[in-house]
Amino acid sequence: MSVTTRPGGRSARVRADVHRAVAELVTEAQGELTLPVIATRAGVHPTTLYRRWGSLGELLEEVATSRFSGDIVVPDTGSLRGDLERWATDVATDLADPDSLALIRTTLGSGPDGGCACLGDRHDQLKAMLEREQERGGAVPTVERAADTLLGALYYRALFSRQPMDEPWIKDLVDMLLR
Amino acid sequence: MSVTTRPGGRSARVRADVHRAVAELVTEAQGELTLPVIATRAGVHPTTLYRRWGSLGELLEEVATSRFSGDIVVPDTGSLRGDLERWATDVATDLADPDSLALIRTTLGSGPDGGCACLGDRHDQLKAMLEREQERGGAVPTVERAADTLLGALYYRALFSRQPMDEPWIKDLVDMLLR
Repeated sequence: MSVTTRPGGRSARVRADVHRAVAELVTEAQGELTLPVIATRAGVHPTTLYRRWGSLGELLEEVATSRFSGDIVVPDTGSLRGDLERWATDVATDLADPDSLALIRTTLGSGPDGGCACLGDRHDQLKAMLEREQERGGAVPTVERAADTLLGALYYRALFSRQPMDEPWIKDLVDMLLR
Repeated sequence: MSVTTRPGGRSARVRADVHRAVAELVTEAQGELTLPVIATRAGVHPTTLYRRWGSLGELLEEVATSRFSGDIVVPDTGSLRGDLERWATDVATDLADPDSLALIRTTLGSGPDGGCACLGDRHDQLKAMLEREQERGGAVPTVERAADTLLGALYYRALFSRQPMDEPWIKDLVDMLLR
């Protein structure tokens, strides 16, 4: 039963078993946070939670929305470029908080339409800055394009590549969007 | 103790208790997937896992990397624009798989440098396409810029906003990057 004499034998089987166990546990873990579990921890009766929030999804959405909303003031620097740079810097700071990662992880897929409630009112904030520029007579990208470019790159670096999000990088990003 | 006569009283306290319970459980949930738990499920001795993978992070990284690597063939259409459009379409299809979401959720923060092992070899694939274009004498963006723009927008739509990722949208995205 030596690994060296039987390549692809026991060693490969252990690897396959372990990978399968991880995949199963990962899928099951999503079912462990339930309203009764939360009720017990909060010291309230489960019916209170069902009556007030209806479902786990709605409760998670409220928690995430309240965490990621109202935390950032829409800047008013006098120019769209200045506003977006200031705002993107604030979003980057917010995403660097370790508690943000835990909440984003849990609420992925919990929002209305299956998105993440962790977006809070980021789209509304972008919309407000773009509309103000339009009122000043400036040309602006769509909210969707601005979200794909700025929020896309910010969430990607914060959660996936973990590369730094410094001032020159943010300026370049805004520049690409407004070009 | 009526809610209507004491706004901000019992009702607000229940809300605060429930939000705190969710935050605590969310943080604790990250500690529930351990090497002994995986060993039991896989039917192997825990020491086998410790000897072979060293830590939970390394095991999760291997599972995610093997899931998100080698799944996409780097296209060779003759132009960088065509390659990136084909590749981004494949990444979008891959991200639409529900199992991808579960694995991404769990492996967020598990990669080397705290990034996500769920990136697999996406950066290497981008690098290969960009280098081929450079050899043809074309001007190319940096790998980092290409990743921020394409992977940023793709992961953002797949995981956060859940907006569709259709062909015209992918073409626009590649266009913005190559402009």
